[in-house]
Amino acid sequence: MELVRREVIPYQYLALQDQIPGAEKSYCIENFRKAGAVAKAIRDGETVPTHPTDQWVYTEENAPKDAFHGWVFQDSDAYKWLEAVAYSLIVRPDAALEQEADEVIDLICRAQLEDGYLDTLYIINDRERVFTNLRDFHELYCFGHLCEAAVAYYQATGKDHLLKAACRFADLICGTFGEDGIRGYPGHEIAEMGLAKLYDVTGCQAYLQTARFFLEERGKQPFYYDHEHGTKTDGTPYRYHQAHCPPREQTQAVGHAVRAVYLYSGMADIANRCDDEGMYKACSALMDNILDKKLYITGGIGATHHGEAFSYDYDLPNDLAYSETCASIGLIFFCRRTLQLRPDARIADCIERALYNCVLAGMAADGRHFFYVNPLEVLPEACHKDERVRHVKPVRQKWFGCACCPPNLARLISSLGEYCSTESEDTLYLHQWIGSQINSRHGQIRVMSNYLQDGSVTLKVDPKAPFTLAVRIPAWCEEYRFSLPCRIEDSYAYFHMEEACTLQVQFNLEPKLIRCSNRVRANIGQVAVTRGPFVYCAEEADNGANLHLLRIPGDAGIRMDGDSILVSGSREMPDRQLYAVWTQPTRIPTEIRLIPYYQWGNRGENEMRVYIPME
Amino acid sequence: MELVRREVIPYQYLALQDQIPGAEKSYCIENFRKAGAVAKAIRDGETVPTHPTDQWVYTEENAPKDAFHGWVFQDSDAYKWLEAVAYSLIVRPDAALEQEADEVIDLICRAQLEDGYLDTLYIINDRERVFTNLRDFHELYCFGHLCEAAVAYYQATGKDHLLKAACRFADLICGTFGEDGIRGYPGHEIAEMGLAKLYDVTGCQAYLQTARFFLEERGKQPFYYDHEHGTKTDGTPYRYHQAHCPPREQTQAVGHAVRAVYLYSGMADIANRCDDEGMYKACSALMDNILDKKLYITGGIGATHHGEAFSYDYDLPNDLAYSETCASIGLIFFCRRTLQLRPDARIADCIERALYNCVLAGMAADGRHFFYVNPLEVLPEACHKDERVRHVKPVRQKWFGCACCPPNLARLISSLGEYCSTESEDTLYLHQWIGSQINSRHGQIRVMSNYLQDGSVTLKVDPKAPFTLAVRIPAWCEEYRFSLPCRIEDSYAYFHMEEACTLQVQFNLEPKLIRCSNRVRANIGQVAVTRGPFVYCAEEADNGANLHLLRIPGDAGIRMDGDSILVSGSREMPDRQLYAVWTQPTRIPTEIRLIPYYQWGNRGENEMRVYIPME
Repeated sequence: MELVRREVIPYQYLALQDQIPGAEKSYCIENFRKAGAVAKAIRDGETVPTHPTDQWVYTEENAPKDAFHGWVFQDSDAYKWLEAVAYSLIVRPDAALEQEADEVIDLICRAQLEDGYLDTLYIINDRERVFTNLRDFHELYCFGHLCEAAVAYYQATGKDHLLKAACRFADLICGTFGEDGIRGYPGHEIAEMGLAKLYDVTGCQAYLQTARFFLEERGKQPFYYDHEHGTKTDGTPYRYHQAHCPPREQTQAVGHAVRAVYLYSGMADIANRCDDEGMYKACSALMDNILDKKLYITGGIGATHHGEAFSYDYDLPNDLAYSETCASIGLIFFCRRTLQLRPDARIADCIERALYNCVLAGMAADGRHFFYVNPLEVLPEACHKDERVRHVKPVRQKWFGCACCPPNLARLISSLGEYCSTESEDTLYLHQWIGSQINSRHGQIRVMSNYLQDGSVTLKVDPKAPFTLAVRIPAWCEEYRFSLPCRIEDSYAYFHMEEACTLQVQFNLEPKLIRCSNRVRANIGQVAVTRGPFVYCAEEADNGANLHLLRIPGDAGIRMDGDSILVSGSREMPDRQLYAVWTQPTRIPTEIRLIPYYQWGNRGENEMRVYIPME
Repeated sequence: MELVRREVIPYQYLALQDQIPGAEKSYCIENFRKAGAVAKAIRDGETVPTHPTDQWVYTEENAPKDAFHGWVFQDSDAYKWLEAVAYSLIVRPDAALEQEADEVIDLICRAQLEDGYLDTLYIINDRERVFTNLRDFHELYCFGHLCEAAVAYYQATGKDHLLKAACRFADLICGTFGEDGIRGYPGHEIAEMGLAKLYDVTGCQAYLQTARFFLEERGKQPFYYDHEHGTKTDGTPYRYHQAHCPPREQTQAVGHAVRAVYLYSGMADIANRCDDEGMYKACSALMDNILDKKLYITGGIGATHHGEAFSYDYDLPNDLAYSETCASIGLIFFCRRTLQLRPDARIADCIERALYNCVLAGMAADGRHFFYVNPLEVLPEACHKDERVRHVKPVRQKWFGCACCPPNLARLISSLGEYCSTESEDTLYLHQWIGSQINSRHGQIRVMSNYLQDGSVTLKVDPKAPFTLAVRIPAWCEEYRFSLPCRIEDSYAYFHMEEACTLQVQFNLEPKLIRCSNRVRANIGQVAVTRGPFVYCAEEADNGANLHLLRIPGDAGIRMDGDSILVSGSREMPDRQLYAVWTQPTRIPTEIRLIPYYQWGNRGENEMRVYIPME
């Protein structure tokens, strides 16, 4: 959180303004400036030129100087930055930062049209074309991020300037979409989540209604996207958008992974707020499909770069993985919302798995370089020579033009507190062992955590009235100790709390060899090494090249060395002949050094491997 | 050979004429008919319309009715068919078949323009555009196949109608390309081989000169393809065409695999005929690179479908392989020519490996269905759902519109005799243990072979004068017996032959477990099973689904059951949890049935796997 506050947020502020030398330009702030000028010109009754709205990305080559630039979803970067700023301000007030944010908000608000419309692509380029390409373009996506930023900033600062803008845009959308209006829905989901948050803050039923409408309308036949594009399909192409059938009927996680988990999060939001058991069941089936069959050990999802999508069940290749940082972040959103519906340790475990591995790996130790794609095996030679892994970068990159992951990471990390606990009528559930202070209706809980270092946590509980405290026992831990008596059920320990007390918790953090199901073809005969929530990996910097020659025996000696794990394994001597009669391979004993997966790639371009073949 | 004669040749004759219901149309004969009409019209001084020559494939949608149809290289299908017919007529005369071939040849010759030009795409569509896109289009490729067909048909029948047409086109090409003409070279190589054959039959030096010119000019800077297309590159895109640097300097097999081995074959032809040691060295380096680092155990080459190309060293994935049938056929061409330069058992072994595995797998048991792509692991679910293996067909297909492989297979199989032996001043080398009768300058050798069935071969040798007979000892065989005394050197057994005698040979055909080098990441911890030259595989039809759960122990009991191999192995029980602490997996003993790789896919869509994980 400190790194995000100190490095990522200021760095992103520069990026939004195209002030990072050598990085791809964002154009984000520039677009808001241009849109503000257009909005003013329209108010002043001036004639405003139009430009085409037919590209996915507008460059200085394909778009005139005064037109929109960057990706169609570029506005969302500002919103994600503002959301991260808001969470950061809650934890640590910062007047200068708040001032910068206020200025960005002013700029955004000045771009809004009189009817409430607020998407700079269409404002700058062509007001007549708004909402004409929901499938491919991102007005409703940017709108969703606007809602999330507005609510966060309002909650952090009490300032409602952006919230009012969001509500005005929401009012326009609620008036435009519906039974009697446009019967469409977002091509890239998130508006559902955004509207739910806006409803929570304003109590405005129309917001909830429109979110529901988007979910109920999605995937209905005849397909809206067919209507919108004059095509006739059986819905198969819309699997990419999760619009091949109604969400309520979906049981398989398919299509673009980020879109998918954003949709499922919205479904959980509606199930929550509308007490919709059918929608909950769909969420539950989709969650099971992911957790049982489509989740990397790092919490990554999206096994194929074709459509940045889920692959079929148990297809989890290590080197070809897409496993986008944003997708794991979205998975955490989905898990958090599902936990709110019903506590489930397996789902809380998934948040932990995704957070400490795939998500953290997205950011370099310097807070200024980022991975979008997070495979479990990287061979730099392949990245340079093999088209099949052209999407894999062997080292973290500076800010990207398509900068979805860094600001998404910033807003998640800055708001980690939200993911630690949920509460019901009589119980407070502690899902994550992150140091925090929880001010619940049941009382106050201070969590002092050495969970990642030595597995110990101290809880100071100060009840307002008697209540039940339920704490998650992580799936990776078989040995643990609680200093107070408890009842254990479904991987939660339940404590009756009547008066102020201290609970000491100790989890055994011993490293473990983990096998992936043999239904996954990629990992036959291999193991991964974990310690607590961290998945470890071998890096060339520690172990030399040809990591695939390393071997771990089933009874390997394992010890810690600082943050590293040392495994008494071996290395096969490279063969001379391409094909020969099988004989026992020659191996020399080798101490294999493993580091936490999230730390890999901080020492220059080199090989990395999570799964190590067994002896 | 019988199957090719009985099924493939007649079936292809129908295909060339678009008479196979349900198969993609070839348009091949139709194009020759159209071109014949154009040629006549031109001779008659009529005005002939033009059509664009800018497509890679001309369909009934993108091309007018009277224009060229099909792929730009469609003419070559007729030539490949004629070549197969010619070889078949040598082995077994067939007046009716010869009559059909003569008619096709008439049709071809009628399409030739007065100046000798003969490519139906440009004849039909636009005479002004000939030789303007050597990089992408296939005039010189079709020309090469024309030469090969013409020489084969002349040698089989003594008829020189097609040979004269080939020479007229060759004369035009020799006059057009050269130091003072077009300084270009074929985008898809084969003209080099074709010109060499034409030189052998005619003794015309110009043909050899032009073949050399193509080889010496290729890859020179500035790049001809840059000149042709008005681009400026560093040659990297021309790796696909092996035109990134001069062939003489190439040491790595790169780019489109079929193109590559056709080029290397042409290089060997020139090294042979011009006694060019530098060119021989390049061939030798390229051969080493393939045999040591880029060859599948099945003799397949081309590990990636991106550009149907070689991947980097030791990158030999089983499921993603391209491994085109034609590429293995071309590899056999290259091996044959290299053997002629210098006998080398390793290269003769490679012919055997490719022939009995990848090449034979290209054709179904019925001779009417074909694989183009020959991976070593096929999961039908992946073929249907995963874009990454969209190029893999889980069952053999009927005739393709782009029908390169079936006729290529037919011409190779029909001419197997050519691949059995080479001779030098004083020695006859027997490279392949195929039943044959060899009429050499040293004498006559009858090979009666049970090599594939029980490893026994009987040779009846009748020398004209004393000579040395050298026979290859296959690399897979460690135990063998010869009935006559011999000297063994570099995997050849040398016999001094003075008078008529019989040599009995016995090779031990026991099945073996083969390991692939551990430099190949895909095969760590797995073995393949072979018997003699055949690689075996497991098929779902015999072993049930989830072949990746099968396990073979290092000391597995192995026995034959007819054509099949039975291995005493085991099957892992499928896991329930996606991730769990590692424990020894539960296995139940299972008899694994393996069939020769070339026989797979004859029993409907199902899983197949060559490499089986070890216990």
